[in-house]
Amino acid sequence: MSGYFRMGPETHAISMEMYRENRERTMKALKTATPGIKEGSVVLLQGGQDKSLYDTDVDYVFRQESYFTYLFGVTEPGCYGCVDVFTCRSLLFVPRLPEEYAVWMGRLLTKEDFKLKYQVDEVHYADEVNTVLASRNPAVIYVLKGKNSDSGLIAQPADFEGIDKFNVDYDALFPVIAECRVIKSPKEIEVLRYVCKVSSDAHKKVMKYVRDGVSEYEAEAVFLEHSYRVGGCRHVSYTCICGSGENSAILHYGHAAAPNDKILRDGDMCLFDMGANYGGYAADITCSFPANGRFTADQKIIYEAVLDARNAVLEAARPGVSWVEMHRLANRTMLKKLTEGGLLKGDVDEMMRAGINGVFQPHGLGHLIGLDVHDVGGYLSHCPPRPTEPGFKSLRFARPLQAGMYVTVEPGCYFIDILLDRALKDPQQSRFLIPEAIARFRGFGGVRIEDDVLITENGCENFTKVPRTVAEIEAWMSSK
Amino acid sequence: MSGYFRMGPETHAISMEMYRENRERTMKALKTATPGIKEGSVVLLQGGQDKSLYDTDVDYVFRQESYFTYLFGVTEPGCYGCVDVFTCRSLLFVPRLPEEYAVWMGRLLTKEDFKLKYQVDEVHYADEVNTVLASRNPAVIYVLKGKNSDSGLIAQPADFEGIDKFNVDYDALFPVIAECRVIKSPKEIEVLRYVCKVSSDAHKKVMKYVRDGVSEYEAEAVFLEHSYRVGGCRHVSYTCICGSGENSAILHYGHAAAPNDKILRDGDMCLFDMGANYGGYAADITCSFPANGRFTADQKIIYEAVLDARNAVLEAARPGVSWVEMHRLANRTMLKKLTEGGLLKGDVDEMMRAGINGVFQPHGLGHLIGLDVHDVGGYLSHCPPRPTEPGFKSLRFARPLQAGMYVTVEPGCYFIDILLDRALKDPQQSRFLIPEAIARFRGFGGVRIEDDVLITENGCENFTKVPRTVAEIEAWMSSK
Repeated sequence: MSGYFRMGPETHAISMEMYRENRERTMKALKTATPGIKEGSVVLLQGGQDKSLYDTDVDYVFRQESYFTYLFGVTEPGCYGCVDVFTCRSLLFVPRLPEEYAVWMGRLLTKEDFKLKYQVDEVHYADEVNTVLASRNPAVIYVLKGKNSDSGLIAQPADFEGIDKFNVDYDALFPVIAECRVIKSPKEIEVLRYVCKVSSDAHKKVMKYVRDGVSEYEAEAVFLEHSYRVGGCRHVSYTCICGSGENSAILHYGHAAAPNDKILRDGDMCLFDMGANYGGYAADITCSFPANGRFTADQKIIYEAVLDARNAVLEAARPGVSWVEMHRLANRTMLKKLTEGGLLKGDVDEMMRAGINGVFQPHGLGHLIGLDVHDVGGYLSHCPPRPTEPGFKSLRFARPLQAGMYVTVEPGCYFIDILLDRALKDPQQSRFLIPEAIARFRGFGGVRIEDDVLITENGCENFTKVPRTVAEIEAWMSSK
Repeated sequence: MSGYFRMGPETHAISMEMYRENRERTMKALKTATPGIKEGSVVLLQGGQDKSLYDTDVDYVFRQESYFTYLFGVTEPGCYGCVDVFTCRSLLFVPRLPEEYAVWMGRLLTKEDFKLKYQVDEVHYADEVNTVLASRNPAVIYVLKGKNSDSGLIAQPADFEGIDKFNVDYDALFPVIAECRVIKSPKEIEVLRYVCKVSSDAHKKVMKYVRDGVSEYEAEAVFLEHSYRVGGCRHVSYTCICGSGENSAILHYGHAAAPNDKILRDGDMCLFDMGANYGGYAADITCSFPANGRFTADQKIIYEAVLDARNAVLEAARPGVSWVEMHRLANRTMLKKLTEGGLLKGDVDEMMRAGINGVFQPHGLGHLIGLDVHDVGGYLSHCPPRPTEPGFKSLRFARPLQAGMYVTVEPGCYFIDILLDRALKDPQQSRFLIPEAIARFRGFGGVRIEDDVLITENGCENFTKVPRTVAEIEAWMSSK
């Protein structure tokens, strides 16, 4: 089906129109942000390259760089893409492959094939990028360079032999395109809705699968299978976190040194944080539930404290509201419930000032999500800076919400020895803790409830469709 | 379970003894290969590092570098490993992580924990590699540098700040350790047997799953699910190739630009080449079968030509036999059957001289397999060089078989337009082709039968356990 990306007949069709719209929005924004920008200027992005596993001839399955996906939707490695800032005329540069490669790769697409497939205006070979650009004599070539505020890594600007002969701007594009990515278009929203639905269904399948004696990685395998076989999602958006028992308090559990290899036991809480990826677009969902499908009284206290925090945010989130305030609201709600539950004592506002919220939830309320799971645009220069107060410094953005933003809402409550020990030793914090209750919850693990939520004109829409209340979870897990 | 790698209770337990034995074999071989090697010399390897997806904070799931796995079995990134050549005393250097990381990674292992986990003699921090080595004043540090003959890439030698103060040898280790990896130890053989069994079972599940209307990627998902959920294999050894219909003739189908997204149709042949990976050790199995479970007469001709080739090799493979001769035997057997089947005419030996074998099978008979799917040791300096005759140049090794080698046997027959067109135009080749028969097979795709086979003292043992004859395949696919 030319002009669309679609994995299978039952999976979402992404129209190449979406990328054309993304190009138009970005060019328009670049013109607005760059007074005096000259006609004949172009934007040039370089796509990702194949990566080999060390010195072997095994490649990782190629995943396209996100900015390149945003503007072109191209799934092949080794490309460049160019857009005229004023006319939006689009040029795709594709690798020139030896005829022989057909034996290994299948029929090689012609330039005309690429033009149809990606609905661009011109296609050239990547080794022609210098000569094709030179023949157009662009006033300025805008390339992408800037710091990812989640990783601290730098987006690498497009480069080719001879680029130093051109007038290249490394500064203007990055904040503009990152800002464009923050507000999702209607077509992007439908992709995000799809991948969130697939991920929700996969989580539901996992909840029915688990029981005493199952290994954590089995749950991961069940999630991956549904996402791919049913949803056409070959990748997940991040390494699956499938913590059970005390592992459910390890925020990035599931990495190679802790590879989801514990056996689920009766009485364990499970915290499974997994999200599929479709066409480069991410889901990021966490479900927390008891391994055996029935909450204990203690599990219910913690779970409902987190659920109340999540509900308060879903109720309050709307354009104009500060994300920092949403974080505060979630944390306050949770601490209030923990106080009612007998774990804490004292005034919630004082607890917040003492940073008790960061003891139980050492991460931010959520993050922007889109083509990256921790999506770009959190701390651009026009945005409020990262907060410095205790319990707020892990926030991945601090800006007011706007319609079209897509965010995770993911309050959590964890019993992490190192943080509890520090708090118990700190007189400013220990006065709020009820030691015997805290002791009872050592080894409990943690609870996180994470939804993917679109900010709308009047509020928000939760794309995540999984059992969330204690009653819903128990009913779902006990049904066959 | 300290001293073992095991993913789950039903999966294979790899004893750390295996790595100790690998170290001892390698040190012994290094001494033998290096006359005058000085006491106090050490081998130093550097393990892999985490890799991020572009500039984001998403990491690929870490996979350890194969030589490092071979000597140490360590699954964490960021390590060094050192072995005293004469005493075999082993030192592991692990990253020094900030206490805070416990929140994200789980309880940080102490040096004592690492010592128990990997059964090494000493553990230090990676930032101490310079000072610890300096305190021992090693005569020579042997590091690993050499070219991978499958990828053409260079294994990167261990490096650390201050290494230039030491006496470092970059040449001696590579051929020695690569040669050690060629001959599998009894413990390695048990790992390979396990991962081959898991992969065989996963293929069998796929064969039962497929039918008209299923997408190729669904088959991939079913394979991945079994390998991981049942077998504990989080990774596959290479990108799954799930070609159906004409895609079954594309040797590296399944890559990002051809991502197993065709729908299987009645009458298609399927060629599914997939292998799980356990503890770093690879399987590599191809099953070919009709999508609907019943061979047509034409499918049977091609399938049985390939099966006869495979059977001839399994019958003949034993120590002392040249792999080049095995390739010749397979190709001759296949061409003979294609002649009987009405596709070719003339004398098989003349066909071989004209390179007709390379028209139908443009790849080698198989390759060494172990920690890498295309394992090391194919063209070391003491080995016969890559053959130059037509139809033989793709061989990944040319050395005589030895007991303890582990190889794939993977004859194939494909109808690839570009190769058929060239052959039909070449008078030296076209005289053997029966054009109307060749025309009938255009779009047929291809057949490959690939087994993972251990060379034993007296012959070989096939670790791959899947239905192979036409009757076995039809019976398996029709049973419920």
